[in-house]
Amino acid sequence: MSLTLIIGNKRYSSWSLRAALALELAEAPYSELLIALYQADSKARILAHSPTGKVPLLETEEGPVWDSLAIGEYLAESFPEAYLWPRGEYARAVARSVCAEMHSGFAALRTHLPMDLQRDQALEAIPAEARADIQRICELWTECRARFGQDGPYLFGHASLADAFFAPVAARLRSYRVELPEVAAAYVATVYKWPAFQRWYQAAQEERLG
Amino acid sequence: MSLTLIIGNKRYSSWSLRAALALELAEAPYSELLIALYQADSKARILAHSPTGKVPLLETEEGPVWDSLAIGEYLAESFPEAYLWPRGEYARAVARSVCAEMHSGFAALRTHLPMDLQRDQALEAIPAEARADIQRICELWTECRARFGQDGPYLFGHASLADAFFAPVAARLRSYRVELPEVAAAYVATVYKWPAFQRWYQAAQEERLG
Repeated sequence: MSLTLIIGNKRYSSWSLRAALALELAEAPYSELLIALYQADSKARILAHSPTGKVPLLETEEGPVWDSLAIGEYLAESFPEAYLWPRGEYARAVARSVCAEMHSGFAALRTHLPMDLQRDQALEAIPAEARADIQRICELWTECRARFGQDGPYLFGHASLADAFFAPVAARLRSYRVELPEVAAAYVATVYKWPAFQRWYQAAQEERLG
Repeated sequence: MSLTLIIGNKRYSSWSLRAALALELAEAPYSELLIALYQADSKARILAHSPTGKVPLLETEEGPVWDSLAIGEYLAESFPEAYLWPRGEYARAVARSVCAEMHSGFAALRTHLPMDLQRDQALEAIPAEARADIQRICELWTECRARFGQDGPYLFGHASLADAFFAPVAARLRSYRVELPEVAAAYVATVYKWPAFQRWYQAAQEERLG
């Protein structure tokens, strides 16, 4: 199986990070094609590969698979032995619920605290809507850890697509120096110790625009 | 298996419609709890069931599954003989891609042409961003029909979660009387002949607010 993941800048593209972590979970061999965002030709270069004009996109031998969530499900199906979703029907249903909630939600967090893996500075003030998003995320992490997290430090014990989806949130919370309750702070530390995340994070430190 | 689907008004709640169509595809017995939106106590009533304060939510014996996409995947797994996703690995990957694209996108269409199943009136003008969304949706329908639609009139031949996700778009295009290319117009007609959609549509005609 030949796979190419088309991504944006590692420093900024949180959805690309999610798809890359999904591939790392699958232990799938793949090539990476990085298209620098915010350039005059970025849109045209992405459109040459992607029907939506967005990254990430996974090129497979049969054609493109687009959107991080569809890429995750495709890999979960293609590499069943890697257990990209947790074991247990209801655990999987909750993992999918929290990923879907992330996929369509938390707009204030995404607007006011965009991912920037080179940042290490608090905002002067976090708007109330973004604070509400952060509170909901901390609740959700706490519930997943309490109910499903016995076998390891990740949201569902072992690393899963749920962690791929929330790793960019963990990165925002650390890079904007957001104060967190204990369980959430411990989970952010878990993400920063995740080797697959660390590889991406290190590459993002070396990126320069233009 | 005891299942209860918590929904908003059938007239307006496009995400509730998607989840209900998923249950119909699964031929899963379920109860329905409708919480009227836009009432003083709507938010409190939804929060009593839903951790996100949103509908739809599926109550299962093990706990809640929330978000239409997670509900769809949960049902696809629980009722494998119903083939909620198309057969064929790549067909499924594309079906998931288009559902995910719907799930997080088409903001202009959703803002300017909100679902109202009692409406039968064109807008004075469709804003350019919403026109771009409609064009992309027509492309996407045309590609799915051409590549995967041999065995029937739905996007992937037989009715699938992709149709559950795009039925509310078909409803918008008809109720706002949007002119469509031939393949898209035929697909809208298919949705309006889908018995599961018709049942919801009929119930929506009888709804009154308040």
